[in-house]
Amino acid sequence: MQVTMCPERAIMEHVTSRWGVLVLQALSNGEAWRFSELRRELELASEKMLTQTLRTLERDGFVHREVFPVIPPHVEYTLTPLGKGAAGHLVALASWILANEPEVTQAQARYDAS
Amino acid sequence: MQVTMCPERAIMEHVTSRWGVLVLQALSNGEAWRFSELRRELELASEKMLTQTLRTLERDGFVHREVFPVIPPHVEYTLTPLGKGAAGHLVALASWILANEPEVTQAQARYDAS
Repeated sequence: MQVTMCPERAIMEHVTSRWGVLVLQALSNGEAWRFSELRRELELASEKMLTQTLRTLERDGFVHREVFPVIPPHVEYTLTPLGKGAAGHLVALASWILANEPEVTQAQARYDAS
Repeated sequence: MQVTMCPERAIMEHVTSRWGVLVLQALSNGEAWRFSELRRELELASEKMLTQTLRTLERDGFVHREVFPVIPPHVEYTLTPLGKGAAGHLVALASWILANEPEVTQAQARYDAS
């Protein structure tokens, strides 16, 4: 059963994917990041997953990829204005989670004890 | 290499997981949902994935699960106040995506043509 996904749902999946969330959060500090820097920041991400995530976010217009023709050449990633819009929501969610983490941890303890 | 995930990151993954996003969005309409109703709403979700997602969100204190001891017994799911906090951020992100979807679709077309 092939159910085509509506565009909004596909975009939501790109933005809220495991690595999409972390890339958008990292880039939301306003700086330009190199691939290697993102890879260090995202610790568990494989090279393939990070490449795929960056390509998806670039295709969606959230991330700008700039190649610097120097020796050795390097690539930098930054958020576009559209990307800042999406990232803003994730940063707000992350702050909410940070503020409410104690209550979630208590709920988990109650659940585990029940 | 076992890298333990900080609690906030684990909670973020629960809330932004593929089915977590959709369950929280569905429940954010303020009504009580039965499992079968959620299953219909989430179309592609397997019974196992939906069960696991609901259990994770219940354990985090976002979803309240109530069993009605009637014949046949049934179960209803609602958002807790904590769940409404998390869901509110996702609903805001979904509205932002809906409003910006045309610009994303244009970016995708430019990327595919390049």
